[in-house]
Amino acid sequence: MNSESKQPGRLIKAPDSFLDLKGVRQVRAEAKAGRRDFLRTAFVAASAAAGGAAQAAAKPLRGDDGDPNILVLPEHSKGLGQAVATDGYGKPSRFEANVQRRQSPGLTLTAQSSVSFAPLQSLLGIVTPSGLHFERHHQGWWDVDPTQHRFMVNGSDDSLLKKAMVFTLDDLMRLPSESRFYFIECGANTGMEWGNVAVPTVQYTHGMLSCSEFTGVPLRTVLDMAGVDYKRARYVLAEGADGSSLTRTLPMELVERGEVLLAYGQNGEMLRPENGYPLRLVVPGVQGVSWVKYLRRIEVGDKPYATKDEAVSYIDLMPDGLHRQYTSIQECKSVVTMPSGGQVLLDKGFYSISGLAWSGRGAIKRVDVSVDGGRNWRSARLQAPVMAKCLTRFAIDWVWDGKPALIQSRAVDDTGFVQPNYAQLRKARGVRSVYHNNAIQTWLVQENGEVRNVQLG
Amino acid sequence: MNSESKQPGRLIKAPDSFLDLKGVRQVRAEAKAGRRDFLRTAFVAASAAAGGAAQAAAKPLRGDDGDPNILVLPEHSKGLGQAVATDGYGKPSRFEANVQRRQSPGLTLTAQSSVSFAPLQSLLGIVTPSGLHFERHHQGWWDVDPTQHRFMVNGSDDSLLKKAMVFTLDDLMRLPSESRFYFIECGANTGMEWGNVAVPTVQYTHGMLSCSEFTGVPLRTVLDMAGVDYKRARYVLAEGADGSSLTRTLPMELVERGEVLLAYGQNGEMLRPENGYPLRLVVPGVQGVSWVKYLRRIEVGDKPYATKDEAVSYIDLMPDGLHRQYTSIQECKSVVTMPSGGQVLLDKGFYSISGLAWSGRGAIKRVDVSVDGGRNWRSARLQAPVMAKCLTRFAIDWVWDGKPALIQSRAVDDTGFVQPNYAQLRKARGVRSVYHNNAIQTWLVQENGEVRNVQLG
Repeated sequence: MNSESKQPGRLIKAPDSFLDLKGVRQVRAEAKAGRRDFLRTAFVAASAAAGGAAQAAAKPLRGDDGDPNILVLPEHSKGLGQAVATDGYGKPSRFEANVQRRQSPGLTLTAQSSVSFAPLQSLLGIVTPSGLHFERHHQGWWDVDPTQHRFMVNGSDDSLLKKAMVFTLDDLMRLPSESRFYFIECGANTGMEWGNVAVPTVQYTHGMLSCSEFTGVPLRTVLDMAGVDYKRARYVLAEGADGSSLTRTLPMELVERGEVLLAYGQNGEMLRPENGYPLRLVVPGVQGVSWVKYLRRIEVGDKPYATKDEAVSYIDLMPDGLHRQYTSIQECKSVVTMPSGGQVLLDKGFYSISGLAWSGRGAIKRVDVSVDGGRNWRSARLQAPVMAKCLTRFAIDWVWDGKPALIQSRAVDDTGFVQPNYAQLRKARGVRSVYHNNAIQTWLVQENGEVRNVQLG
Repeated sequence: MNSESKQPGRLIKAPDSFLDLKGVRQVRAEAKAGRRDFLRTAFVAASAAAGGAAQAAAKPLRGDDGDPNILVLPEHSKGLGQAVATDGYGKPSRFEANVQRRQSPGLTLTAQSSVSFAPLQSLLGIVTPSGLHFERHHQGWWDVDPTQHRFMVNGSDDSLLKKAMVFTLDDLMRLPSESRFYFIECGANTGMEWGNVAVPTVQYTHGMLSCSEFTGVPLRTVLDMAGVDYKRARYVLAEGADGSSLTRTLPMELVERGEVLLAYGQNGEMLRPENGYPLRLVVPGVQGVSWVKYLRRIEVGDKPYATKDEAVSYIDLMPDGLHRQYTSIQECKSVVTMPSGGQVLLDKGFYSISGLAWSGRGAIKRVDVSVDGGRNWRSARLQAPVMAKCLTRFAIDWVWDGKPALIQSRAVDDTGFVQPNYAQLRKARGVRSVYHNNAIQTWLVQENGEVRNVQLG
């Protein structure tokens, strides 16, 4: 089911948004009506519109002023609320029910081999709530019993390591762990935009992107325990336990850095089932397909494996007719999430343009923002902490004059790489790619406030 | 209901733990039986014990070796799993159902004025999942309609600011925001330990502690908009909209630093209802009661307000018979969460001792760990990022020899403050306090592996 119509951004004029345009204007008009009577007037007006609830904020709440309206307190300012631990594991507000990850119907033949996109337009800061983490499955997700799960390390050849080993999850969790914040992006994220399809919202253009604090054991630790011969074993193969038997090659250099994790934790708790519970590989900076879920095996080898999932999929068809394999690093990229496609600016005036930037090669150094389609750029504020291979939130002040605006962001990472526009990307990569689109995104703000996805240059 | 018995730590020998002691020993024994036949033997053994599921990890999974056992694949390695977006907002694994926040029955007269504790023994890294964030309510929690909520800024005297102002949530969300990671700790956390009650688990001793990425507008921004006279308005009063009308004074110095936030976001999404949705005050480093939930009003004033919630509660009775008010900063503190009370070490050998450290005055500089009740100390590893007024995860390697051990942690912050032991704390603070206990916690590991809360010194 296409739930597009039920997907408000924070700025959308919709019945389930915080306040519709009429409501905003009414409260503002009342507020401007007079400084002295301002408080009472504003709240009586709001009360008329809203059934009295808004008066909660009125102060002083005197009972001696003869105005019965001023005495109407909302129920939550008078009554006894709900008990602690009503939910031993809590849920979002009922008013946030529209903030959901969503499938793009028809994208794949079955919903078990499909994608759900994270609602970037509604997200704040850099952490993605685990309940909204994007999904990409090759044969559906499972809630695997952790007591039954085993993880094995072996070699393509017995001489590549001293001993093969099998671990229970308890074994792994007794080893020293690391917790780090990393982004994960599907290599196919923003893939539809190659064809200038103009997918309507940032949820669908860029929503195969999430960011979490991952906890796990460095893969290096376990390979050391197995006595791997690092001089000869220059590759590892990661294998998942789900029906797709997803397998991906990684170069040993990545493992030797110590960043690759056998992760069991995400955002302070155990992984979620749809994210690979109880064990997944975390490969910072590398496309999501290599973060193998339900991880059951690591094999060390002396050459790349050229498995189905790296020979046929996740490859880039280049202008010269050859294709690139093992294009694993997610290059520097950014996107404005507010305002973004499908949202509506309710009014002229001040807005804080905000978005996300990331690079698989390191930390974000700078993000520039344009409101005129790339003719002029200003540098945005980067919110701390700025961490390598992690999302970075940026923001910049903007006063909208009510005229059409073309909003873009352009990220620069600490290697000096500058996010390309579409002309630059197509020049290097041609026009027949699906994966690894990191071009500058453009949002058109129309005079009526509606924001649309457009593609420039 | 006391659910103590249903609360496994990761190391506990319990039916719903990952693997019981027998299972661990069986797999290990089989693994040691022989290197060449190791893989098959281990998995056949595990299969016998576990109904075949464990064989998923066996490799190679040949069908040509005549051993039918080796062909038994678990369902999740053969079948089609669940679809994407089965949950538009996902949930933890069914195997994690015991990881819950819990009330301590009888702690208060009603469950609406009580506490639920975060399960620190099960948490990883530094982020607390919002569903497990501790709760402390004064009159129960509400799911307040954000379209009806108003936030007001006024002065105790009209001359203290240029204009009173009322904001809708949409108004606030259009202003420039900040996102920062901060811990929040109730001033009463670890309060039972003053009396050497030896509460059984770290969930109940230290679980009024959580850590999130909070997003909101600096309070300073809004006070600037209202034209506050900072020379005279040296205090602010924060007021909640729930029935308790909780009110707390803050010194203006805290606000002027820019850290105090009018927060609407937590861990990437909107606040949860039980944490003050749609608006709460975030006061980094300060005890939780000042982080007023359902925030409806900030009043600026020229003196402290001495409200009920700061004159009668959250005060410290000192040895000289006087009491301290406005003791708001949470001093440097730490606790080992693994191993901790109620857990059971299944075996001698290697463990990674791990825990959390924090200081309301700045960043954690060092954490020392003792396994002999404070006679010898070693410095633990601090996991990056180490952020001010945020939880810091520490860990240190330990080989348990099977003898009784007294495990402690001692944090030092970047002001040089050293977390005290109980003798030092009582010397300074006497014996009649309830609040602000930051003493060193001791866990006794008994010879049978059981971990108990004991108090030294």
